[in-house]
Amino acid sequence: MKVLLIGYGAMNQITERLLLEAGHEIAGVIARNNNSDYPAFESIDEAEADVAIDFSNPELLLPLIGEDFKTPLVVATTGEKDTIVETLKTRSASAPVFFSANMSYGVHVLNNLLASALAQLEDFDLELIEAHHNKKVDAPSGTLVKLLDTALEHRSDSHAVYDRSDVYQKRDAKEIGVSAIRGGTIVGDHTALFAGLDEVIEIRHRAQSKEIFANGAIKAAEVLQHKADGFYDYNNLFKGE
Amino acid sequence: MKVLLIGYGAMNQITERLLLEAGHEIAGVIARNNNSDYPAFESIDEAEADVAIDFSNPELLLPLIGEDFKTPLVVATTGEKDTIVETLKTRSASAPVFFSANMSYGVHVLNNLLASALAQLEDFDLELIEAHHNKKVDAPSGTLVKLLDTALEHRSDSHAVYDRSDVYQKRDAKEIGVSAIRGGTIVGDHTALFAGLDEVIEIRHRAQSKEIFANGAIKAAEVLQHKADGFYDYNNLFKGE
Amino acid sequence: MKVLLIGYGAMNQITERLLLEAGHEIAGVIARNNNSDYPAFESIDEAEADVAIDFSNPELLLPLIGEDFKTPLVVATTGEKDTIVETLKTRSASAPVFFSANMSYGVHVLNNLLASALAQLEDFDLELIEAHHNKKVDAPSGTLVKLLDTALEHRSDSHAVYDRSDVYQKRDAKEIGVSAIRGGTIVGDHTALFAGLDEVIEIRHRAQSKEIFANGAIKAAEVLQHKADGFYDYNNLFKGE
Amino acid sequence: MKVLLIGYGAMNQITERLLLEAGHEIAGVIARNNNSDYPAFESIDEAEADVAIDFSNPELLLPLIGEDFKTPLVVATTGEKDTIVETLKTRSASAPVFFSANMSYGVHVLNNLLASALAQLEDFDLELIEAHHNKKVDAPSGTLVKLLDTALEHRSDSHAVYDRSDVYQKRDAKEIGVSAIRGGTIVGDHTALFAGLDEVIEIRHRAQSKEIFANGAIKAAEVLQHKADGFYDYNNLFKGE
Repeated sequence: MKVLLIGYGAMNQITERLLLEAGHEIAGVIARNNNSDYPAFESIDEAEADVAIDFSNPELLLPLIGEDFKTPLVVATTGEKDTIVETLKTRSASAPVFFSANMSYGVHVLNNLLASALAQLEDFDLELIEAHHNKKVDAPSGTLVKLLDTALEHRSDSHAVYDRSDVYQKRDAKEIGVSAIRGGTIVGDHTALFAGLDEVIEIRHRAQSKEIFANGAIKAAEVLQHKADGFYDYNNLFKGE
Repeated sequence: MKVLLIGYGAMNQITERLLLEAGHEIAGVIARNNNSDYPAFESIDEAEADVAIDFSNPELLLPLIGEDFKTPLVVATTGEKDTIVETLKTRSASAPVFFSANMSYGVHVLNNLLASALAQLEDFDLELIEAHHNKKVDAPSGTLVKLLDTALEHRSDSHAVYDRSDVYQKRDAKEIGVSAIRGGTIVGDHTALFAGLDEVIEIRHRAQSKEIFANGAIKAAEVLQHKADGFYDYNNLFKGE
Repeated sequence: MKVLLIGYGAMNQITERLLLEAGHEIAGVIARNNNSDYPAFESIDEAEADVAIDFSNPELLLPLIGEDFKTPLVVATTGEKDTIVETLKTRSASAPVFFSANMSYGVHVLNNLLASALAQLEDFDLELIEAHHNKKVDAPSGTLVKLLDTALEHRSDSHAVYDRSDVYQKRDAKEIGVSAIRGGTIVGDHTALFAGLDEVIEIRHRAQSKEIFANGAIKAAEVLQHKADGFYDYNNLFKGE
Repeated sequence: MKVLLIGYGAMNQITERLLLEAGHEIAGVIARNNNSDYPAFESIDEAEADVAIDFSNPELLLPLIGEDFKTPLVVATTGEKDTIVETLKTRSASAPVFFSANMSYGVHVLNNLLASALAQLEDFDLELIEAHHNKKVDAPSGTLVKLLDTALEHRSDSHAVYDRSDVYQKRDAKEIGVSAIRGGTIVGDHTALFAGLDEVIEIRHRAQSKEIFANGAIKAAEVLQHKADGFYDYNNLFKGE
């Protein structure tokens, strides 16, 4: 497929490399300063690509999606999520658009498996653990917060507990323990641990590189280009395939 | 609830202890030699229990289920599975009966999560790993064989690979690697590992004691006593609750 | 060997069972109320045992070790550690005595491996993680505190960090992250994780039952009975064997 | 430091990048075809570098080390190990040279920790497990073979077992189980698992990228440049620092 890249930072340069390795073609780039060897475009449809993949920022993206376009579009920009989703939903009347706050397909599956486990393991204590590199400033990670949201949907009277060193009491069944490990260059490791009477079930996702995000976007793009106009995320993209 | 124990070996003695700890009552025992302090019975309904829990053997169990009974019955006997299931299905016209080849509820959930992951991770390589104590004679474990069956239902053109030390070639996508680790007193550890492009998803169950089987039987019994006549396993027992 | 049990609570009843399974003999019991079938004694040497194993409490133990004795003695009482160790050192002039704050041999080895890793992995970030059952009131566990002490001996300018959810900054190299997971009936799980540039080394100990403490005491007793008078712990017990 | 690169394939291009990121300088390259932007050299001393790092092959390397040189040299070429080591030992009369079959420092530490654990856990069953990507043709990995060698030095009457699916018997204490997991793009994961009575100790190394080999070579080079003439490996390189 012929792909327009929106943004040409670290993530879309990985996307570029994976696309070329898989035999796809780069139609061009939309970027504030086009430091690539590809043609620069100003609007999405101008590139006449089969699909556009965005890893940019709200400043670049929002003007581009301010008006209707027809090119299937995969959006991975983070920040101003509500505005972006709302705008994309309007645009989805005339184009297939895909959005995911976490472009890793594996993390999406992790979240699905967690939801499934929550429905089956009501009596089990749940603990969420993540590990990331020592440069990460936020804790817990955005992905863990998403997993916690999923858990709280099933256990609405539960609450997260981030530190147990300052209390001296046994665990309340309504606790969901959250641990954030930091060290080295760990890319991203997330575990949901369910502990019951003499048995433990763990669901774990480990990322080895940031390529998983580019890979997820490409996978989404491959499917999206054949979809009817509409708003897609990982929950409905593969339906009806 | 008032429970009749069928068999009074190691497993039903654990069941007895957990039942008493949970405030339940033992109505009596059916065993070749009743070495318990409870009344001995010869047939299931005679005990007038709310539910019967069986951890025995085909020799003891099959005569008991040879004729109709009305007491809800949880069966955990292994061996002669086909005969037992067929007989129980006949009996289920007049009583609620429950059967599971692995009475651990957690292992059942592990299998469900594996099935769910298989449906979502088609491109990922699957490897199955189990660990057990050094006295176990069979490898891989019965539970791993069950997980493998589940995998092969979704990947019918795949096949298990038990040893890679004797070939010198890269992994075929149709392989499902099976590893059996043995050592010490490990009770039971099963992992399904899905490996894709720079990400890995693991689903793991660890057992800490044989109590998980007694616990599963009790959990099943608590639900089964309120069920309509019929044949139940973990797939339909909790439906409609 | 013929063993005197000091205390006859849950731990020494496990010790009793393991001793009998291994072909050893119980000489008798010292307990406030002897609810065992063994002879009751009032002082250590009175039992004429080959070795004494204590799992009791300071109230019972301290008077017993108030005067000299000759029977080799393994002490696992927790609480009033300083007084007990000091008293035992005095007594060690006339008897071989063994003391360990954590009677698990595996935990002792974990601590040794951690010390060895610390000496070799100076540039790696260290994180300590433990998991225990939901009834445990203290966090982190005593064993983790011991591991942390070991770490701080090697990294004297480091400090423990128990919660990262309340700060927004990258990890300082002088941090040692401490995470305490709680759930179900987990007996005890301790991990030292060293994270460097694109590689991670983990050293982990998992306990499956409290038998490891009884087992450690028996193992120590088997060696101690042949030792010269003196004070022993896991660091010198096996030397010169 | 000013570094001469011997070989300019994938590994030394990673080395180049990490050197530049760390503020070091590239003196030049020795390669069959110099496709870099650096000066090409024909012999080691010609580059007047502080140290040379080799990631090449015996065809390129052996002629270079056929005669004496003075530049400190780090060698990571695999293949013809015996010839290379013998030659390097001769050359070490007039230069400091470093050789390691596995340039990852973490793997070296893993092996040390395994040796330490073997000395302390004589009664524990040992199992070795590794996981690698699906393109790897050999199983078990070279690193696992090295770990197995270390284990067999301590347990000379033990033997490796690669497959348990074809026997029906309990584990012999003299077995060392070896499992090779293959899938996706896993870079390298090695675990030594010691299983005893109700406790398990695991020592695990996980690699996230091939940078660990380049990183190990750079780390070795930084120390080697200040060393006296002699032959070094990871066991003596850091001594006396």
